[in-house]
Amino acid sequence: MMILRYSAASPYARKIRIAAELLGLSGRIEIVAASTADPSDTLRQQNPLGKIPTLILEDGSALYDSRVIADYLDHLGGGKLIPAAPRRFDVLRLQALGDGINDAALLIRYETAMRRPELRDQDAIDLQQGKIDRALAVVESAPPSGPVDLGQIAVACALGYLDLRFEGAWRGKHPKLVAWLRDFEAQVPAFEATKA
Amino acid sequence: MMILRYSAASPYARKIRIAAELLGLSGRIEIVAASTADPSDTLRQQNPLGKIPTLILEDGSALYDSRVIADYLDHLGGGKLIPAAPRRFDVLRLQALGDGINDAALLIRYETAMRRPELRDQDAIDLQQGKIDRALAVVESAPPSGPVDLGQIAVACALGYLDLRFEGAWRGKHPKLVAWLRDFEAQVPAFEATKA
Repeated sequence: MMILRYSAASPYARKIRIAAELLGLSGRIEIVAASTADPSDTLRQQNPLGKIPTLILEDGSALYDSRVIADYLDHLGGGKLIPAAPRRFDVLRLQALGDGINDAALLIRYETAMRRPELRDQDAIDLQQGKIDRALAVVESAPPSGPVDLGQIAVACALGYLDLRFEGAWRGKHPKLVAWLRDFEAQVPAFEATKA
Repeated sequence: MMILRYSAASPYARKIRIAAELLGLSGRIEIVAASTADPSDTLRQQNPLGKIPTLILEDGSALYDSRVIADYLDHLGGGKLIPAAPRRFDVLRLQALGDGINDAALLIRYETAMRRPELRDQDAIDLQQGKIDRALAVVESAPPSGPVDLGQIAVACALGYLDLRFEGAWRGKHPKLVAWLRDFEAQVPAFEATKA
């Protein structure tokens, strides 16, 4: 068995859990919660960056980060989620967009929920919110289509994270994305099953 | 011609510039500076995340982030920097480690150089420094070997960024990495040529 170090709220770990399910690999992966905040968690020995997801392979070696794990699982699972070139680059760019929304959302989360209130910097929050707003506008203008791929999974996980941490405020201005996510959920039961 | 939006100090853009040179593609790529801070820079239209590097293809579409650009250029250039599986995953993990050092170093840089002094959070700095220290210890224990690959380029760019922004403080405790970087520089003239 492989072991996936994850947390329920991590959108990057959710991406991997959904990918594993769609690739038919979830039966080969045990999921084990990890704490990125606890120095005594074995996570920091497995991945020096102390980040989740981290995938422990059967030989005991560890793979990180989520992009690399997704590439590995797609390789194991027959390449269903990352198509061949030239579509490959559209899918990888969409994954980067979804991950980039999450990167920005997590920085806002650290700023507002982890940092002491007197140390909060509204400029830093606004800078990250701008990234999220522009990225959502791009996907709203042309929601993903075609068979489910890694890029679509990353975008769905980003929207799910915005729902979890920011009360779905994105929904008001992005009706096409709301409809797209509804279709995605209907096609991919693992999305609902991995909800935090 | 393709256009690479970059900044001289960006370790992720440096990774792409070195990769392009090693793949024999630098003659097909014009480099054009971009400002991530200036809202009127076209960068934010090209890449909604407002990040560098961003690669504008000949058809006008844009690729991001640096991982995706590296994958694309390696595809164009015959796959010299990302070997086939199973070595592929070692190389991609090493790239993730180098990029992860840069992610942490950039967060420290934002905290110390961009944020108003009264809003600095030493806990946030210490958390990121721990990631850098553990990642360096892992590479010091077994420096990369074999032909130059994308993972090695990412690590070299991370060490270069630590030299640029943190006065090479990493050098004292990592003699094997110092020697490794010296060898890398000798093999890869593009490293020195892209120094900020």
